[in-house]
Amino acid sequence: MPAERIREHAVPVAAARRRRLRADQARQLADLLRHQIRTAGFPGGVLPLEGAIGADYRVSRNTVRQALDLLRAEGLIERQPGVGTVVVAEKYPHGLDRLQGLAETLREHGTVTNEVRTVCPVTAPGPVARRLGVPEHSDVLYIERLRRLGGLPLSLDLTYVPMDIGARLLDCDLEHNDVFRLLERLTGQPLGTADITLEAVNADAHSAAVLQAPRGAAVLMLERLTHLRDGRPVDLEFIRFRGDRIAMSGLLHRAC
Amino acid sequence: MPAERIREHAVPVAAARRRRLRADQARQLADLLRHQIRTAGFPGGVLPLEGAIGADYRVSRNTVRQALDLLRAEGLIERQPGVGTVVVAEKYPHGLDRLQGLAETLREHGTVTNEVRTVCPVTAPGPVARRLGVPEHSDVLYIERLRRLGGLPLSLDLTYVPMDIGARLLDCDLEHNDVFRLLERLTGQPLGTADITLEAVNADAHSAAVLQAPRGAAVLMLERLTHLRDGRPVDLEFIRFRGDRIAMSGLLHRAC
Repeated sequence: MPAERIREHAVPVAAARRRRLRADQARQLADLLRHQIRTAGFPGGVLPLEGAIGADYRVSRNTVRQALDLLRAEGLIERQPGVGTVVVAEKYPHGLDRLQGLAETLREHGTVTNEVRTVCPVTAPGPVARRLGVPEHSDVLYIERLRRLGGLPLSLDLTYVPMDIGARLLDCDLEHNDVFRLLERLTGQPLGTADITLEAVNADAHSAAVLQAPRGAAVLMLERLTHLRDGRPVDLEFIRFRGDRIAMSGLLHRAC
Repeated sequence: MPAERIREHAVPVAAARRRRLRADQARQLADLLRHQIRTAGFPGGVLPLEGAIGADYRVSRNTVRQALDLLRAEGLIERQPGVGTVVVAEKYPHGLDRLQGLAETLREHGTVTNEVRTVCPVTAPGPVARRLGVPEHSDVLYIERLRRLGGLPLSLDLTYVPMDIGARLLDCDLEHNDVFRLLERLTGQPLGTADITLEAVNADAHSAAVLQAPRGAAVLMLERLTHLRDGRPVDLEFIRFRGDRIAMSGLLHRAC
């Protein structure tokens, strides 16, 4: 995106010579700005003027405009008359390094409240029973919660818990507590590990409506099977995070 | 989703009594089937008949149909005349437990090839220079690659590397090698750790076209700053994975 001073080299430079499309440059710039937006890198949440961004990043104003269009389409920024381009997204960091409930992980950012949409025993389908280590067709507790921070939906969580523990969850305050904390309290032992899988999916119409997001909005989908420290699986969850409200961060190591 | 036998309990049961919408049940079923699709849980990649799924999961055929519609919309399954409903997605597992390049992590699934769209020195914008620990406005090597497995696009990767190492990357075969491997070869030391952030975003029109995905398709966006074992940051990447082709899995621990 900045001035390209292409050097003479063998094969790769043939590719380098290709004229870069403005769309490529706009994406490249948008990614750099996205990081600054997410990490509160703009004082007061106000972006510099287009000309200043162009000078900083050595790109044309048209490229800056196109990059800002991309970020606006993602719901991260808005143009406000008399103010300029401001950050409007509230994207919260969710740790990937440690197993935590939503209220725990977002403690610094506000209070998580849960709208319990459903809580009832259901007959465990085969795959659920196997993963939770309970007999097929036995009961498990099914909980469906819409989770909010600052009043706005963050995630829609579908949870299955073995019935011996689940029956006691029915008497707990699920509106104001992470299930993780309740599981530890009820079983008297800490959680151990969780197998997680993260995917990006487009929200179907109904999920989008529940999450108050546009139809087709990108959703960060987390599937998580959580075990007690003694290894027993106790919590199978399918969580749809609004893509515009959550970023997951962690540290990876090269060595095992 | 299975028959609800609601018990008499205090607050939560008020919520449980609400009539479950079929859309909720369809989502719940779709999530369970999605797991089986991803983990090759259907022999021969063929789903059971709607009636059989309905019996297994104790839901109506209409709910089964609606769940299959959701999975079809995600591009995971298709109805094939004379065969039934078959798995068509090739969703590859990308580990979250260990820092690996794409070719390394997908070795069992095929050969990753890289179309090098751009490789050239650029003047590092401030945020890139700071994160890579090089002087502001000094040169860094910028690499843009479209990465494919089995001929189909998997990801679009934008990469920044400090110029002292980057200059030597220009002579390497970037089409057939992970940058990670090349960095280790060139520096003579293994990589150490990487700070990663994962987000779900909707692909803009141009990124979607490059990835051969529908406009607005959900993309798993990975930002990764990778360090050598001695702690030096050497590789800043912005990676857009096609949401329908990658699932990231790992193990989280409750204790630090």
